[in-house]
Amino acid sequence: MSMISRDVIAAENAKREGALKSDYAHLGEQLARRGIDIDAVKRKVAAYAVAVPSWGVGTGGTRFARFPGAGEPRNIFDKLEDCAVIHELTRATPTVSLHIPWDKVADLGALKEMGAGLGLGFDAMNSNTFSDAPGQEHSYKYGSLSHADAATRQQAVEHNIECIEIGRKLGSKALTVWIGDGTNFPGQADFTRSFERYLDAMKAIYQNLPDDWRIFSEHKMYEPAFYSTVVQDWGTNYLIARELGDKAYCLVDLGHHAPNVNIEMIVARLIQFGKLGGFHFNDSKYGDDDLDTGSIDPYRLFLVFNELVNAEERKAEGFAPAHMLDQSHNVTDPIESLIRSATEVCRAYAQGLIVERAALAGYQDDNDALMASETLKTAFRTDVEPILAMARQEAGGAIDPVATYRAAGYRTKVANERPAIAGGGGGIV
Amino acid sequence: MSMISRDVIAAENAKREGALKSDYAHLGEQLARRGIDIDAVKRKVAAYAVAVPSWGVGTGGTRFARFPGAGEPRNIFDKLEDCAVIHELTRATPTVSLHIPWDKVADLGALKEMGAGLGLGFDAMNSNTFSDAPGQEHSYKYGSLSHADAATRQQAVEHNIECIEIGRKLGSKALTVWIGDGTNFPGQADFTRSFERYLDAMKAIYQNLPDDWRIFSEHKMYEPAFYSTVVQDWGTNYLIARELGDKAYCLVDLGHHAPNVNIEMIVARLIQFGKLGGFHFNDSKYGDDDLDTGSIDPYRLFLVFNELVNAEERKAEGFAPAHMLDQSHNVTDPIESLIRSATEVCRAYAQGLIVERAALAGYQDDNDALMASETLKTAFRTDVEPILAMARQEAGGAIDPVATYRAAGYRTKVANERPAIAGGGGGIV
Amino acid sequence: MSMISRDVIAAENAKREGALKSDYAHLGEQLARRGIDIDAVKRKVAAYAVAVPSWGVGTGGTRFARFPGAGEPRNIFDKLEDCAVIHELTRATPTVSLHIPWDKVADLGALKEMGAGLGLGFDAMNSNTFSDAPGQEHSYKYGSLSHADAATRQQAVEHNIECIEIGRKLGSKALTVWIGDGTNFPGQADFTRSFERYLDAMKAIYQNLPDDWRIFSEHKMYEPAFYSTVVQDWGTNYLIARELGDKAYCLVDLGHHAPNVNIEMIVARLIQFGKLGGFHFNDSKYGDDDLDTGSIDPYRLFLVFNELVNAEERKAEGFAPAHMLDQSHNVTDPIESLIRSATEVCRAYAQGLIVERAALAGYQDDNDALMASETLKTAFRTDVEPILAMARQEAGGAIDPVATYRAAGYRTKVANERPAIAGGGGGIV
Amino acid sequence: MSMISRDVIAAENAKREGALKSDYAHLGEQLARRGIDIDAVKRKVAAYAVAVPSWGVGTGGTRFARFPGAGEPRNIFDKLEDCAVIHELTRATPTVSLHIPWDKVADLGALKEMGAGLGLGFDAMNSNTFSDAPGQEHSYKYGSLSHADAATRQQAVEHNIECIEIGRKLGSKALTVWIGDGTNFPGQADFTRSFERYLDAMKAIYQNLPDDWRIFSEHKMYEPAFYSTVVQDWGTNYLIARELGDKAYCLVDLGHHAPNVNIEMIVARLIQFGKLGGFHFNDSKYGDDDLDTGSIDPYRLFLVFNELVNAEERKAEGFAPAHMLDQSHNVTDPIESLIRSATEVCRAYAQGLIVERAALAGYQDDNDALMASETLKTAFRTDVEPILAMARQEAGGAIDPVATYRAAGYRTKVANERPAIAGGGGGIV
Repeated sequence: MSMISRDVIAAENAKREGALKSDYAHLGEQLARRGIDIDAVKRKVAAYAVAVPSWGVGTGGTRFARFPGAGEPRNIFDKLEDCAVIHELTRATPTVSLHIPWDKVADLGALKEMGAGLGLGFDAMNSNTFSDAPGQEHSYKYGSLSHADAATRQQAVEHNIECIEIGRKLGSKALTVWIGDGTNFPGQADFTRSFERYLDAMKAIYQNLPDDWRIFSEHKMYEPAFYSTVVQDWGTNYLIARELGDKAYCLVDLGHHAPNVNIEMIVARLIQFGKLGGFHFNDSKYGDDDLDTGSIDPYRLFLVFNELVNAEERKAEGFAPAHMLDQSHNVTDPIESLIRSATEVCRAYAQGLIVERAALAGYQDDNDALMASETLKTAFRTDVEPILAMARQEAGGAIDPVATYRAAGYRTKVANERPAIAGGGGGIV
Repeated sequence: MSMISRDVIAAENAKREGALKSDYAHLGEQLARRGIDIDAVKRKVAAYAVAVPSWGVGTGGTRFARFPGAGEPRNIFDKLEDCAVIHELTRATPTVSLHIPWDKVADLGALKEMGAGLGLGFDAMNSNTFSDAPGQEHSYKYGSLSHADAATRQQAVEHNIECIEIGRKLGSKALTVWIGDGTNFPGQADFTRSFERYLDAMKAIYQNLPDDWRIFSEHKMYEPAFYSTVVQDWGTNYLIARELGDKAYCLVDLGHHAPNVNIEMIVARLIQFGKLGGFHFNDSKYGDDDLDTGSIDPYRLFLVFNELVNAEERKAEGFAPAHMLDQSHNVTDPIESLIRSATEVCRAYAQGLIVERAALAGYQDDNDALMASETLKTAFRTDVEPILAMARQEAGGAIDPVATYRAAGYRTKVANERPAIAGGGGGIV
Repeated sequence: MSMISRDVIAAENAKREGALKSDYAHLGEQLARRGIDIDAVKRKVAAYAVAVPSWGVGTGGTRFARFPGAGEPRNIFDKLEDCAVIHELTRATPTVSLHIPWDKVADLGALKEMGAGLGLGFDAMNSNTFSDAPGQEHSYKYGSLSHADAATRQQAVEHNIECIEIGRKLGSKALTVWIGDGTNFPGQADFTRSFERYLDAMKAIYQNLPDDWRIFSEHKMYEPAFYSTVVQDWGTNYLIARELGDKAYCLVDLGHHAPNVNIEMIVARLIQFGKLGGFHFNDSKYGDDDLDTGSIDPYRLFLVFNELVNAEERKAEGFAPAHMLDQSHNVTDPIESLIRSATEVCRAYAQGLIVERAALAGYQDDNDALMASETLKTAFRTDVEPILAMARQEAGGAIDPVATYRAAGYRTKVANERPAIAGGGGGIV
Repeated sequence: MSMISRDVIAAENAKREGALKSDYAHLGEQLARRGIDIDAVKRKVAAYAVAVPSWGVGTGGTRFARFPGAGEPRNIFDKLEDCAVIHELTRATPTVSLHIPWDKVADLGALKEMGAGLGLGFDAMNSNTFSDAPGQEHSYKYGSLSHADAATRQQAVEHNIECIEIGRKLGSKALTVWIGDGTNFPGQADFTRSFERYLDAMKAIYQNLPDDWRIFSEHKMYEPAFYSTVVQDWGTNYLIARELGDKAYCLVDLGHHAPNVNIEMIVARLIQFGKLGGFHFNDSKYGDDDLDTGSIDPYRLFLVFNELVNAEERKAEGFAPAHMLDQSHNVTDPIESLIRSATEVCRAYAQGLIVERAALAGYQDDNDALMASETLKTAFRTDVEPILAMARQEAGGAIDPVATYRAAGYRTKVANERPAIAGGGGGIV
């Protein structure tokens, strides 16, 4: 099943093929001067994949308002179709990450089958204990896995176990646990007792984790809690992963840190101590802005990938991070934002691959700070778009995915099929 | 009409009267040593007032979820009753600030009358062009007063004029304009053209402002826009007030600044240049957290009031700022949070009043940094609660307003009268 | 030997004794209402001690300039005398923390003896590998314990071992290691290799640590390195302490964190995992401003002490943190700043002691966020100065230490004895 | 006179000429597809110039230490030679900005002549009232232009007037005033009175400004003052420029803002209101880190230039900003850092020039946030190095300036001529 007509892709590619060939050839010449084989880079890029979040294909919002677009997906089946569009055009997003209970369905077999038909697999499962589902017995208003009340914690544990069960049936191999637990006022909770309760609850979940699964805990500085957050930073996150065991890893969301923090260094530390589980990619300027990956500080994204490629090339022990986008698309067509974000992640990976690492190590050992930093800048400055485009085209995707998406008229089509949704603000100010 | 039984207040006060008298007497003795007349301070505190936001009596939330409490107000009439509770206990919140269209009603006369019956007046009107109201012709998804489309701007202008009209009928004397206009991505809008459009639209509103009204523009660094915001800081806000004219002033929300910014200095600058319009009080640790005033950094609140009292005492020209609470109560009973926040504002004011200003000026002129700063700290360290409590009691309020509120059983009463609201997350992530 | 005349202290105290007695009595009455015995609190406060940094008694500066004051100490002997002044007046600073090589002397016996004569002991030793000492063989321009060159690392290791040796002779029991190692540009160093080298070097130092000593590693977000810092946060610091062994602990400097970070939570985590070694107290608004403790955000200081008292009262395993001031006094008389900072630390401790912990725990278990946070605020709002002053007076110190210091004319005396130092900027911009 | 042998430049260029031709041709082809004439861009880049700060050619430091390099310039004559090297290789830095009294000499005629001989002119003069010069009558410890004492203010005013006099003789046309005035503690100074004194002092300087000169005031959030700074942000800076008159403008240093602040928006506002005077370019991650321009966040630099090119192309009224580098080179050869920083500024300018502005405006008007932001990203992603290199080569500079500088052996030469300087820490902690 194909969501975007092969003919449209072919027609759009035909317009750009000539320029791409010329650009690819010239870039190949440039890279050859540096001793880099462009085809080898292209092959690695082609093999690279990043998961798409099911919730990302719907229009996001803020506490002030949400402004839906046309053709909003109504359920996980609609979402899968939207995700398929992204993968067909980029050839970089073969898996989808689900959020339970948002994506819960009665017939998991049908869901799995639909995914298979669209060429999509299922990435890490995401539990949700940061909002109350209709009819839920115990409220998460005051926390979930760290709640003062044992019954509420138990409910949250069971929800996570259910997510594992659903994931098993869909072929997922990981559970991502992000909780909003924390406080809004000094004194509201005891930091130590809260964290003890959290650890106990996570251990209960961990005991239900299949042997071939991993569990990812995700830290976040603040929001929805505005004074303290139970899993507030990578230090606490590392302690969690260590306390739980070998299948427990830390997940890094790029937008979940304090201002000015050196995130690539955190990535390096987690790799060094064997606990980097994966990423939620996005970009941000202020808080957890959840903007399109690479849209605010592309160099920072590159520096993260520089660490990843470094680890990959030195074959760091236990290094196998999961890559996922996690964004909120408030003012763009979510499919377009995910397309370009997937592309940006590929771009940063390609730029990381063309860093001249032997030269870099030499400059580092010589304390030649200028040439060391220029070595990274040179890789970053290189316009690797021809590599990305060639890899996409060769895999059946689009040279220019956004233009092709627009040419295909997908949004108009679903806008006709799916009912319009009224926007509005929830009075949440 | 009284929301809280006078008997309950009397009974609760009776329990605390003895201690209060003793504490007040001893504090009077301490202040007398510094040459300060406690009764004079008390009289000023008693005359102080801060407005309560109508939206503040409902439970707030985040983009992730909202967890309503029991007895949520259903409309502006319920909200007025809740506001009356706050004023009856604190005697510090005689006015309510409305938000349109949230508080729009067919019969404004009835609303005004109800307010009068409850002893409540109406403070600044707040327009809303940061979310789409049902049935609205033009969407504010891409802005309102600065929107690229003239018809959308016109709609936003008319909405503000309507707010003025409503306010006139209710006895309000000011319009507060906060817009969410801005962008999520570099390039999304042209900063200069956007601001020109904003200024044009504000001028159109200004032309409709009655002679005895003021218009307050409110700056905010970010959220809901995550890359740029049209009215992003006090510098832009000052330019707006100057461009508009003598009735235009800047409103300062304590949570709308960049990390580490010295807010009290901004307050001083706006006073010096005659453009401080007023405040939205709250507290925050990370972003626009909208926490209870004084709950995170009480010394910062004091330093703001130190500037206000300084301006008041030197009779700074044109100094007459409006004071309003603006908070989001996500995990507390909103009435309780507003009670203590009103109290905190009074506390900071009282602490500002007992700063020994002549001594302070002397230390400043002598560059005696240590004694100058200790002079402020001494005022801040003084526990002025007896002054606040005595002022409340003498005005018919409660010595301990939260305890009295709980004793009165108001929340239970309205929980029985008002239907429960289901919580939940909007899928806005 | 006494630096401040007992007569001056007695005369100054005599002026304030009456008021103090009255205030202490009334505070005792207030605390008794809450079930708190003021004398018990006073006894704990009297037993509390914080170390003074030897370098703190000289006027500090910035990279732009340094403006020395009158009577700058010329060497560690002058510094000890200045430190003695602080202790004689506050009775809270019985130990001094040395910095090597700044405080290196040929005759350690004489130094120890002088300390004993002044009633001063020696707290943690501080090594210095963030600047080059005259004649030093290998430069620390590009790092010390993490330097790419083995000989430089070895030199840094040996310097630390020398610090231990000096400390042994003086009766110190701890070594504090703060390094400036890091980079100014992305790529300048490999994060992982740098940290491996650092760990190796620290292990070499650790092997030379006496059995009854502790080693404190200190993290800092940035400065002097402006892109990355080897020991950048508590996460890395914790890893260090864990890798080294049971005698290794983390030191927390209040000014060494990212903006908005919840420091009291870090303190709680380190206590929970048995690795809190101690503190460098100071205050800051922007970066590592090294301002007087409690001068910018006194509530934050209280919240840190709230965690410390909590741990003390629940007898947290292995909890025995070292307390030290670490400040830069650029515009005040350093002795005065240290006097008031020592007092502020005592104040926060006293406020922590009067938190009603059983009630607090109850509110926490009930998710009564408002009353829980008010419980802390009530303790913080209480003016505990009478407790501090009474404890000082009873121990032979001054009721008002700064006023007494000024009355004693110590600064004038040393200004006459010690030659004036020219200020200036180093052209370091 | 030539500091770098023409032969070395020629020989180094010869090695790279072939590749450059090929790259330039291909880039020309790519840009032509977008309707951009590469030669026109190159001509604009060739005409672009940025001033070098005289103090920038010496190794900088921090309050902790300074680690000088080999061949440190001893005086302004040495500095001019170093600056000439930068210009000869980059052809982009034809002027030098002086700092008085650091660069004060008896014979200004000789200085001017030497500059002329090296092909260097003199950019804005910089006064220094943030440190005390030897023998200075009144200390700036507690401020300069805003000092409480009139005589100190007068001294600072006179120093600035002297800077103007020196500048007139050298052919400069602007005075940059950056002061460190501010406070370390709340209460230390009265914000309003301080600012009044500052404005009075600046007016006195302004009266002495020649008709064809401009005066630039520079704001900075903090450092060396750590609680408040008199000229703390662009809002205050704008007020200053407006109060002074038509020859007064605001100078923007990229590192002088609060965390997360949108600097390009400030630039746009100052342009819109006719008060953008110029820039101090550098880069930073935490505070005023003064790192090499473009080394931390190159996209932010591009976004600033996007505003500048936008203003240039729409011929914004009064738009003629001065461009200057202002950095501290602590771990690199300062000449190399200035070379690459000049290059980075040119790069950002070139990238700004190739933004497809008509398309951008169209996307903005259509609220096509994705394509608008991609339009900027496309320009930024384009590797414009061939344009920069070709412009340099054609003007007699080096295709690869840093490699050519190294090949020329200049640092070794001056290391032999100029005495070594011992590093060290000033005990300023």
